Amino acid sequence: SIAKPLHSLGKLEDLVVQLAGIAGTPNVKIEKRALVAMCADNGVVEEGVTQSGQEVTAIVAENFLKAETTACIMAKNCRADVYPVDVGMAADTKVRTDLKVAHGTKNMAKMPAMTREEAVKAIEAGIFMAEELKGRGYQILATGEMGIGNTTTSSAVASVLMEEPVETMTGRGAGLTSEGLARKIQVIKDAIALHKPDREDAIDVLAKVGGFDIAGMAGVFLGGAALKIPVIMDGFISCAAVSICPEASGYILASHVSKEPAARLILEYLQKEAVIHGDMCLGEGTGAIALLPLLDLGISVYHSMSTFEEIHVEQYEELK
Amino acid sequence: SIAKPLHSLGKLEDLVVQLAGIAGTPNVKIEKRALVAMCADNGVVEEGVTQSGQEVTAIVAENFLKAETTACIMAKNCRADVYPVDVGMAADTKVRTDLKVAHGTKNMAKMPAMTREEAVKAIEAGIFMAEELKGRGYQILATGEMGIGNTTTSSAVASVLMEEPVETMTGRGAGLTSEGLARKIQVIKDAIALHKPDREDAIDVLAKVGGFDIAGMAGVFLGGAALKIPVIMDGFISCAAVSICPEASGYILASHVSKEPAARLILEYLQKEAVIHGDMCLGEGTGAIALLPLLDLGISVYHSMSTFEEIHVEQYEELK
Repeated sequence: SIAKPLHSLGKLEDLVVQLAGIAGTPNVKIEKRALVAMCADNGVVEEGVTQSGQEVTAIVAENFLKAETTACIMAKNCRADVYPVDVGMAADTKVRTDLKVAHGTKNMAKMPAMTREEAVKAIEAGIFMAEELKGRGYQILATGEMGIGNTTTSSAVASVLMEEPVETMTGRGAGLTSEGLARKIQVIKDAIALHKPDREDAIDVLAKVGGFDIAGMAGVFLGGAALKIPVIMDGFISCAAVSICPEASGYILASHVSKEPAARLILEYLQKEAVIHGDMCLGEGTGAIALLPLLDLGISVYHSMSTFEEIHVEQYEELK
Repeated sequence: SIAKPLHSLGKLEDLVVQLAGIAGTPNVKIEKRALVAMCADNGVVEEGVTQSGQEVTAIVAENFLKAETTACIMAKNCRADVYPVDVGMAADTKVRTDLKVAHGTKNMAKMPAMTREEAVKAIEAGIFMAEELKGRGYQILATGEMGIGNTTTSSAVASVLMEEPVETMTGRGAGLTSEGLARKIQVIKDAIALHKPDREDAIDVLAKVGGFDIAGMAGVFLGGAALKIPVIMDGFISCAAVSICPEASGYILASHVSKEPAARLILEYLQKEAVIHGDMCLGEGTGAIALLPLLDLGISVYHSMSTFEEIHVEQYEELK
């Protein structure tokens, strides 16, 4: 067309097409939007793989309720509501606990992070959230998380599922030193060697070396796919969550390429292309939220375009 | 800080820091925003280097006034006003002509695209626009263009200034066939061989193988730098425009990496990193506009963060 050469909005067009496919109608609407933030603790922090302690998970989780996290500020700016969920924090806070599976996972350096039943329960918590929010009329979900230690578990899960060396899949998280990074890699390697998770069985991998936050996010992706609500990935942790349930991929929108080095590899493995290359690594769902205004732009063009085509063709004919 | 690990918003943080540096105050405001769309024609289209004819420049330019271009739809969505400028279109339209330098450039395959005086005048048109919009209270400018044939001139300009082979710097524009691409490359090579532009003299390069739209955009960048208004680059054409005036770089924000293959190379050459990797190639300023909501997000976090730090530190102390 004259107004807009074919595919000239690139990945924005691809995303709008994907949204239309999920909705089953060209009349794509994503006005009612929510961020689901899965909050959980990871026993492996005992091993000194993080800069911060578990108390920070609780602080930030409660700040979600007060709209005082970075993701909340961004969500407000993008007219998204925020739903933090305690899917397994060590502490009990004012964040909803009805979907809580346990008070944190076990230390995977010593024993499996969770039982198989707990893994399934945490996934179901995510599915429940997708269902609940669909019931409340939400048209698109963004995923986020808060859980000190969850880059460690994400690296472990992704490393097993993708059969990539732990070194390749592990980064500095929220700011580890080189020494800290080496320790983190060793802890992950040892945990994998100890539990021998079966890469053909994603639940086994999740239970042995994963976390409740990853499981909860995977549940949101699965629930979204089942209920035909598009779900936006966030960064590295959500990459690990999607690698648990790649079958849901068609209903999942990539948002950004996290600074965490393995994120790019997982996106490639999942055959997902992210529009935002911002070297962001904050988590909480900040990258997923940042995709919303770009989707709004793509949809605004898409909704206006059919009218345009008529206008332009007419004008073009007049000029000839 | 607990609320947000250092540099965890990556390039979004860098951009906010850049905006604060330009404003000379941490109180960054970009609420009043405009897109300047430089519209011009290029004589080289006579050589068959494009899919569309010059009449399309006029159609789209007038549609800017009616808010009926893709960039206009996106600008409306982002609360940006749109100012199309006829800096050298072949036709006269309802678009403002007070800054018009000529009725299109000459065919660079046969003679220099413009005189040195015309090149300067077109740059001054851009400077004038920056000044006028600053006078009207605009706090940030996005750049766009409309000009059939302007990927040809942009490839020519960038190829000379960066001393890169024409083949490397030339893409399919709005959808050329492989044959068309080969022809476009040959036309550019011949024009460069014919006029021998002096790469040490950017005005000479611009005059001989450039376009009024590129010149006008360069003017907006220069005016923005002089007047301390941040100016957002768009895609490939604006890359060529910035390569004319790299001195203004500190006042210029990269937005997206165009699908046009050389765009990435020019951004690297200019040491600019773009947040949006969307394979967009529509022009008009669509990529520049798309950066605005991401800047809004970055600024919203930045403005809220100082308050947070107090809150979080207090809470942290209480828990210890």
